[in-house]
Amino acid sequence: MDQKWLEEQKEQINLALAQQGIRLVVPVRPRAGQGAAADQDRPLASFIDHTLLKPTAARMEIERLCAEARQYGFASVCVHPVHVAYAARLLKGSAVKVCTVVGFPLGANTTLTKVLEARDAAAAGAEEIDMVLNIGSLLEGDYAQVYSDIKAVRDAVPGLVLKVILETGYLTKEQIVKGCILTKMACADFVKTSTGFGPGGATVEDIKLMRRVVGEEFGVKASGGVRDYETAVAMLEAGANRIGASAGVAIVEGLRGETGN
Amino acid sequence: MDQKWLEEQKEQINLALAQQGIRLVVPVRPRAGQGAAADQDRPLASFIDHTLLKPTAARMEIERLCAEARQYGFASVCVHPVHVAYAARLLKGSAVKVCTVVGFPLGANTTLTKVLEARDAAAAGAEEIDMVLNIGSLLEGDYAQVYSDIKAVRDAVPGLVLKVILETGYLTKEQIVKGCILTKMACADFVKTSTGFGPGGATVEDIKLMRRVVGEEFGVKASGGVRDYETAVAMLEAGANRIGASAGVAIVEGLRGETGN
Repeated sequence: MDQKWLEEQKEQINLALAQQGIRLVVPVRPRAGQGAAADQDRPLASFIDHTLLKPTAARMEIERLCAEARQYGFASVCVHPVHVAYAARLLKGSAVKVCTVVGFPLGANTTLTKVLEARDAAAAGAEEIDMVLNIGSLLEGDYAQVYSDIKAVRDAVPGLVLKVILETGYLTKEQIVKGCILTKMACADFVKTSTGFGPGGATVEDIKLMRRVVGEEFGVKASGGVRDYETAVAMLEAGANRIGASAGVAIVEGLRGETGN
Repeated sequence: MDQKWLEEQKEQINLALAQQGIRLVVPVRPRAGQGAAADQDRPLASFIDHTLLKPTAARMEIERLCAEARQYGFASVCVHPVHVAYAARLLKGSAVKVCTVVGFPLGANTTLTKVLEARDAAAAGAEEIDMVLNIGSLLEGDYAQVYSDIKAVRDAVPGLVLKVILETGYLTKEQIVKGCILTKMACADFVKTSTGFGPGGATVEDIKLMRRVVGEEFGVKASGGVRDYETAVAMLEAGANRIGASAGVAIVEGLRGETGN
């Protein structure tokens, strides 16, 4: 991927949006960067969204997840919308944020539903939202649709951190690039690889590509198949600055074991 | 499963709901039955929801799905919410209904989101809604939560056919029975086995059990893994009166091949 090709991808998308009458507004005050650059001295746990997205999750498992997040200092707990209010209550007074998912895991909900789901989650105490973009529209090249869908959620929860899940397992490299450009244009905060419910997961190659496209001052979250310390570190080295994992404790304990030797 | 045990299951649920202050209201005018009893002479296609729930589905695939549904006389097309308006336009003037999914496929969305998603779909032209119940709450025995979730969607779209997906692959036989009782108490129209995205799918044994619990005047939809004529007929013989399948054409063509010999 050379710079010229990347600029062509952006130009294609700009054209597609302009044809639909969408004019991009450059924000007067840019959002606080979610980039990786200044993050090197933070503990590993602070890069991890401690995740429990099994549909069978019981309240007791949410309690354990939140307790572990407090204990280890994870960035957030990532839970289904139905558990947000309870997790927010359990984590009150801690630095751990509540993250939830929107249009998850298929992304084929209407924009109205995604907007409502995001606002509902914000009202219940979520501070981070991981939404799945409209995969079908991205595959068809309907960039205006993909953009509008993300932008509507962005505008619905302006104060929250918004991560956009591309579900890279369905996408070509070019479609991943397009998804990253659209995510950034729509003023989200992170691009994220996978739901964990689709084909494939995060790869070092995809993370490098995504970081290259969005630049240093933007978030990149690696998720799907990150189950141990080595993989987590490989993702961070490739350019991720957030990890989504249900094995957060094992990942961090792996670190401890190693530093202890 | 004897009748006494089944009555005990109902009593347990009644008690759980009463403890939460939920009083069941017997509708003055019962909903039109969705039972199987009077359905024996209908063609096989009229029992099938012609289904396309891949998250990657493109508009061209929706067009083909709808054309096939018209041609073969399927009961409905079952598509993601984002495709409802287009499918409704394509099927205008035909007897084929548009069915969509709510809280799909994990069921862990808030009730508010499910309600909004159902109303949004109704406004876009859906006539049938397949919702996923709150699986975690059913597993925990929080029957009031499961009931309220279904009932809220029921009340949000009173004129639509409402099917409740149990995702049987996660459930014990007793939990399947409880899910059926709750679905019927909440005045939905169908119990449905599976999303096709979870573990397992429809089995003859589960369909027989579900039909036994809900009685003759209620709908039972078999979905997940129904890919050929033989399986479809086995499900109908076991008590299903609706089949969800992405292989609807193959199922019906299988019938034709057989009757042609």
